[in-house]
Amino acid sequence: MRVVQNGVAQQYQTVAFDRNSAVVSLIDQRKLPHQFSIFESHSYQKTATAIREMVVRGAGAIGATAAFGYVQGLLAFCGKQMSAFERQEERVFSTLKNARPTAVDPVNAMMEIRAALREVRTIAGRQEAAIAAALRFAEANVQDCRRIGEAGRHLIQPGCRVLTHCNAGWLAFVDIGSATAPLYAAHESGVPFHVYCDETRPRCQGAALTAWELQQAGIAHQILADNAAGHLMSRGKVDLILVGSDRVVGKTGDIANKIGTFSLAVVARYHQVPFYVAIPLSTIDWTMETGSLIPIEERNAEEVTAARGVLPNGKPGVVQIANPGSPVLNPAFDVTPAELITGIITPSGIFRPEQLWDNRQRLGWSE
Amino acid sequence: MRVVQNGVAQQYQTVAFDRNSAVVSLIDQRKLPHQFSIFESHSYQKTATAIREMVVRGAGAIGATAAFGYVQGLLAFCGKQMSAFERQEERVFSTLKNARPTAVDPVNAMMEIRAALREVRTIAGRQEAAIAAALRFAEANVQDCRRIGEAGRHLIQPGCRVLTHCNAGWLAFVDIGSATAPLYAAHESGVPFHVYCDETRPRCQGAALTAWELQQAGIAHQILADNAAGHLMSRGKVDLILVGSDRVVGKTGDIANKIGTFSLAVVARYHQVPFYVAIPLSTIDWTMETGSLIPIEERNAEEVTAARGVLPNGKPGVVQIANPGSPVLNPAFDVTPAELITGIITPSGIFRPEQLWDNRQRLGWSE
Repeated sequence: MRVVQNGVAQQYQTVAFDRNSAVVSLIDQRKLPHQFSIFESHSYQKTATAIREMVVRGAGAIGATAAFGYVQGLLAFCGKQMSAFERQEERVFSTLKNARPTAVDPVNAMMEIRAALREVRTIAGRQEAAIAAALRFAEANVQDCRRIGEAGRHLIQPGCRVLTHCNAGWLAFVDIGSATAPLYAAHESGVPFHVYCDETRPRCQGAALTAWELQQAGIAHQILADNAAGHLMSRGKVDLILVGSDRVVGKTGDIANKIGTFSLAVVARYHQVPFYVAIPLSTIDWTMETGSLIPIEERNAEEVTAARGVLPNGKPGVVQIANPGSPVLNPAFDVTPAELITGIITPSGIFRPEQLWDNRQRLGWSE
Repeated sequence: MRVVQNGVAQQYQTVAFDRNSAVVSLIDQRKLPHQFSIFESHSYQKTATAIREMVVRGAGAIGATAAFGYVQGLLAFCGKQMSAFERQEERVFSTLKNARPTAVDPVNAMMEIRAALREVRTIAGRQEAAIAAALRFAEANVQDCRRIGEAGRHLIQPGCRVLTHCNAGWLAFVDIGSATAPLYAAHESGVPFHVYCDETRPRCQGAALTAWELQQAGIAHQILADNAAGHLMSRGKVDLILVGSDRVVGKTGDIANKIGTFSLAVVARYHQVPFYVAIPLSTIDWTMETGSLIPIEERNAEEVTAARGVLPNGKPGVVQIANPGSPVLNPAFDVTPAELITGIITPSGIFRPEQLWDNRQRLGWSE
């Protein structure tokens, strides 16, 4: 997507790989929205560090990053013995896997590359096959998001006022994003619309990342405290809610997403505001029976009690905002039941949540 | 209420007046929750400054502060001429009124003191009458809150899990508070219960002030991001929601309160969680026709884009948390319609919102 720096617009992807130099380059998300810079990694170890230290975040983005890191690890092998190459491959795989142990995308991405090597007999052949597979993997992520945009763009009619929560934008994918894809597609067609960005406490990805994305794209938007979303709906100022998801239960259409999504969906129903969820097919979990079984991660208290940002002198800083003696409850996700969801926007079209299971063959179902 | 400092518990009121020294003493709320200190004012000018600079906030608290400041201004008069005394009185009234021009409580409080002076003919007599009237005004605020506590305490059954939003606690009144009054009454009776404090973005009064209050009182509680309230309700972990209000429409029972209250009420209804609003009678507006007419103040962007608190070195600090180039929408209040409210807890008992009008004689109605 387009990024404007010092008045000059340039195209970037969240994750990119130069096959000649074997360099992985990432937009450094630790510094956004205050500073735009590219983090370059010349080794799989440094790429693992980038995943661990949140230089890159978002399911699609860390999957592609791990895929490229895996390739870096294979290219770094200089020996001649296949057995040593395979030991190196194991070492690289586990280093990248352990960089974010609870995330499933890095593992899935590397498994996909690994599968492409199975039939290849030479070290050089496997190295070449890995490069090609990783590039295909990343490009597939971009194309999936593009198709989500095509599927959902008609929802954004001229004058539409869209409310979003968290960041399921291009910074969370290789490019384009899921929840943002229909917005970018409509904007490219010249449709005028307005986006309300929930700030998305406690980590404020909406205020920091989605707002930054929309500003770069030149899309009209406003940041608001999460608390204000209901008020806007009550005044008839929201035409559509569009969010991403961390897991969609294929059997029921229930979805898990950033904490606060569920309340939004309830208030949207109260006002009959359409509520859409945009996802790539890899987000669908075909094994789980129902949304209430999705485990909800509890994160540390400091996300709630302290605010991180930039001090007036431009340096990173943190302030304590809550009563220091009080305990904290910090669930990171919530579950929105299918009954509150108008539609699920996928690269294969829009489905009512209860239609997912019947369309499972088209939607990449695997037992 | 009780405050524990260095292991020693002591009783404080948010606003107090020493009639011998004519000193107004206030808990300095600019420094809470990080530091507890008393702000002493020896003059009506300094008391006006305290109101202006948010040393004291909350309708009940600033009303009583203005009443005492008004008394300070009358006591400072050393002349003998009634006409000069009356000019001084006008000067004091307007200084205190202008300290927070949109607030109605300081004016109402001073009007009440002024009414008590009308029949008194001497300067000394008026000074004495003003002291007595201001002390009565403050004590009435305390007694009203105590009666709210008595009216609502039975709602807090053993094991009850109560969710609150913002701070309608003793720091917003002379003592005890409105939404907190049933909690303190139940706690005094030895009832065990748990409170979830919404942090209440953007100003975080829940995380900073309500959590501090509950900690001082020794009441079990946790702070949570506002986004987490719906998730807790969906898991059956909230038995009761209890909030204050800035304005209750007597004719309909609609209420205005801190932004986010309305969404809470909608989600509470979805889960059949009882939703109560606690108020002194002065909060009821008998003239307005319906809640949607309540003007909603839009506050500055900086409340949303920056977080204020304490730096690791203990000094006050502020960090920018949002994308600097993005516009902001920051409504401070929202309106919860009567249909979502289970009951309104007043010093005269609990009423269904639609019962207020029929009981207007008991509830201090004036045309």
